Amino acid sequence: MISGTNAIGSKSSKQGNKTFKTFNPKENKETEWTFYEASSNEIDEAVALATDAFKVYKDFSGAKKAEFLEAIADEIEALGDELIETYCKESGLPDGRARGERGRTMGQLRAFANLLKEGSWVEAVIEKAQPNREPMPKSDIRKMLFPLGPVVVFGASNFPLAFSTAGGDTASALAAGCPVIVKSHPMHAATGELVSSAIIKAAEKTGMPNGVFSNLNSSGIEVGQQLVKHPKVKAVGFTGSINGGTALYKLANERDEPIPVFAEMGSINPVVLLPSALENDGEAWATKYASSITMGAGQFCTNPGLVLGLKGAKLDSFINTLSEEILKLEPTCMLHPNIYAKYNEGKKELSAQKGITVTADYKKATNPNTAQPSILKVSGADFLANTKLHKEVFGPFSVVVECENALEMESILNHLEGQLTGTVLGSEDDLENNSGVVDALQSRVGRILFNGVPTGVEVNSSMVHGGPFPASTDARFTSVGTSAIKRWVRPVSYQDWPNKLLPLALQNENPLKITRLVEGEYTKN
Amino acid sequence: MISGTNAIGSKSSKQGNKTFKTFNPKENKETEWTFYEASSNEIDEAVALATDAFKVYKDFSGAKKAEFLEAIADEIEALGDELIETYCKESGLPDGRARGERGRTMGQLRAFANLLKEGSWVEAVIEKAQPNREPMPKSDIRKMLFPLGPVVVFGASNFPLAFSTAGGDTASALAAGCPVIVKSHPMHAATGELVSSAIIKAAEKTGMPNGVFSNLNSSGIEVGQQLVKHPKVKAVGFTGSINGGTALYKLANERDEPIPVFAEMGSINPVVLLPSALENDGEAWATKYASSITMGAGQFCTNPGLVLGLKGAKLDSFINTLSEEILKLEPTCMLHPNIYAKYNEGKKELSAQKGITVTADYKKATNPNTAQPSILKVSGADFLANTKLHKEVFGPFSVVVECENALEMESILNHLEGQLTGTVLGSEDDLENNSGVVDALQSRVGRILFNGVPTGVEVNSSMVHGGPFPASTDARFTSVGTSAIKRWVRPVSYQDWPNKLLPLALQNENPLKITRLVEGEYTKN
Repeated sequence: MISGTNAIGSKSSKQGNKTFKTFNPKENKETEWTFYEASSNEIDEAVALATDAFKVYKDFSGAKKAEFLEAIADEIEALGDELIETYCKESGLPDGRARGERGRTMGQLRAFANLLKEGSWVEAVIEKAQPNREPMPKSDIRKMLFPLGPVVVFGASNFPLAFSTAGGDTASALAAGCPVIVKSHPMHAATGELVSSAIIKAAEKTGMPNGVFSNLNSSGIEVGQQLVKHPKVKAVGFTGSINGGTALYKLANERDEPIPVFAEMGSINPVVLLPSALENDGEAWATKYASSITMGAGQFCTNPGLVLGLKGAKLDSFINTLSEEILKLEPTCMLHPNIYAKYNEGKKELSAQKGITVTADYKKATNPNTAQPSILKVSGADFLANTKLHKEVFGPFSVVVECENALEMESILNHLEGQLTGTVLGSEDDLENNSGVVDALQSRVGRILFNGVPTGVEVNSSMVHGGPFPASTDARFTSVGTSAIKRWVRPVSYQDWPNKLLPLALQNENPLKITRLVEGEYTKN
Repeated sequence: MISGTNAIGSKSSKQGNKTFKTFNPKENKETEWTFYEASSNEIDEAVALATDAFKVYKDFSGAKKAEFLEAIADEIEALGDELIETYCKESGLPDGRARGERGRTMGQLRAFANLLKEGSWVEAVIEKAQPNREPMPKSDIRKMLFPLGPVVVFGASNFPLAFSTAGGDTASALAAGCPVIVKSHPMHAATGELVSSAIIKAAEKTGMPNGVFSNLNSSGIEVGQQLVKHPKVKAVGFTGSINGGTALYKLANERDEPIPVFAEMGSINPVVLLPSALENDGEAWATKYASSITMGAGQFCTNPGLVLGLKGAKLDSFINTLSEEILKLEPTCMLHPNIYAKYNEGKKELSAQKGITVTADYKKATNPNTAQPSILKVSGADFLANTKLHKEVFGPFSVVVECENALEMESILNHLEGQLTGTVLGSEDDLENNSGVVDALQSRVGRILFNGVPTGVEVNSSMVHGGPFPASTDARFTSVGTSAIKRWVRPVSYQDWPNKLLPLALQNENPLKITRLVEGEYTKN
């Protein structure tokens, strides 16, 4: 049963007058549910509760926070088919994707629980006293990471589960010891409410302080702005558009006390076809990329939106196959009429640019809000001269650039903005012979791939999902994988502190049995 | 021989028309040297050279960069007494301090060299492929840290060596693989020129690319602004005032591509006297703090500018001793007439606030630019009500707050801005009995000390010199100690990359023999 209310900790609340509805893009009509936009007072209540909760929650052991995260995963699973059906209704995405994303979401929560149980993520560093050092005695100094305080998370449109209410931002912030206030994504507020209820149930079952999690509804920008400006909010996680992310980033920097905003804002994920890829595997890569570009109606941050190859018959044949194959795939429904409209606008704008040839454009009749894939091609010179072509079109769409030579390819890469990913297709010899191109690509991205597709982001300890601006607002952190926890913490040093009163992670006896850097050596002793 | 020119890589340059002189505060007159302010063209040249140098320098091995850093230390030492004399002339600081700071500066360079030779600082993480994983095969993904690009460093007024031309910011950025452009501090441009010549000599001797280091003179704010706005500059290090640091931070955030600014902006470093400290050691602490407050004419970021104690006879006696002792110490020369004037202004302003009693104010005749120490006292209520009293007065000055009770103490700490350090004086029982106070203090600081003085910042792996805004612009990083290198890097993941073409730190065989996180385990294998 969807109530449409906000969750201020464990309290259900609907103080505001403004309401909104979510939309079923497949049926092209509003859903049956009505949501109450969070009022200014509700925002203050949620932040005050989170601030109180932080005082207790920050000191909970890793084991206790892990229990909470695991309980959230269990409670999400216990929502059963209602969650899957609600997800599909509000997103237009198919049942299989919903189940896959639910699995991933639970997997993320459990991965952070395991990280907490292992415990070494706090980066404990110990340097012991040397009272007889000359000319000055050396103090005992020990540092580790501590949570920042209440975190605001903005749910993403394109991952109603894995990057939303209990997604990677929430899971990593809760793992770090920070209470979370979610600004629920207005396109899937019912899905958000169900997941929120699971989190709150898990919090109650595992003895978490009230306010460790709140969920606020909003269809406009004001609720988000008020949250980011709130003096008691200490950090922000966001996944979405460059405009949205940049606006929040600027707002956070204008505060009396600026706070970090981790906005992951997508990119065009350049793919470089080196000679032997075209020579030996052009057709196969074209077929693989037709499917990567259209996967999930192209609604992925890592969707390959730019392909660079050396001009010639082999590239022609790659473009032909890519264009044919992409038209063979059944187009799928986008998340919302607004996203569908924006996709069509973007496609139209780019198709009309100087030097563009449209090599594929799906023309057959489709269901409502269904994205017709498209492939464009353009010369290297025209691409370089026109930064409109460097922008992301969110959907099943890609631009192939015909480069004159490797130098032009390198120059194009050097003129791109920051990217989440970059991919090189070819042989090992190609990599060695094109080090300039590979270097230029590496300098622009958070993740560089060899002979693969960028869609599909592994949740593990070695993933970087982020990249130079505007792929993300802070290239030094990742929003996917266990290192995402590092966004919500800061180090504190303890100098000459009595051993028994130190946090457990810093005590001489290493009671948590974690790996620490002691006098320059990594050790579990 | 001081030329007064800028160093654009290895080229000496004086294209601009504007000149300025440095000042000898002890003799209260200008020095004999004239400096050429960097022109807009010289700035562009330095950045272009640094950008070119980065292409080569970023790929140098840790061992090769370590050689460079060690050579810098050696060349600084080889400057001999000319450096010491120039330092003293431009800063008014005594010979012993100059020699101590030179030792510290060389020590920092060598500490980063050792970090590079050991090599594990790149945080290599490896997760191997699982081709048979269901439902999707797992890719091989490996990540490590890479340098950001050219870094601009602003020298600090109060550490002409250790936080300036070849100070911690420069040493850590060069260690990370980033070329450095120093905006030399106008109060000690000659000292800066000497150190710059040592760096450039070291670069030439160890085969570094031209442009790995440049030194620009400037007496105004325009050179710094142009540097921070330059699109090819990728990060900024700054130590100085809140106004200066915040202005650069805002400028960097307004760029098309925002870049990180690590500004360390000082603080008032609260000291909490818990009951048994007053009961048993009040006199001793008062004497120790008289000396900590006046050390280096109070010109330290970690100078204790605020002392909190519980009202009563014991605190009265502490204040009396502190006030007496501080007047017994010989006042010392400040860095510059501007700093001296600012100190007097700040002291005057705070002394005139409601409820303030001046308990010590040095009145005897002194040499020019010599800071007369002062101690104020005020009630907790008056302190809480007046945020002017919460601001730093840079000099030998401290405010003692008479708190009604522990709750008021806690409330005061909760109303302070972010601080570099916080100190608790007392017994272990005091710590346990005042957990609210200790918690409030810990939440505000980068370093928390027990029974010590905050002045004196150890350069090691466990130091946090930084803290919540406005102590620094990014509490997640430190500007002192080996972790300072983490400010100039970002992680990049390699997915399914051929082993032999991976950076050495990520190759299967671990040729660098560093500690890596492999499949969740820290290992040197």
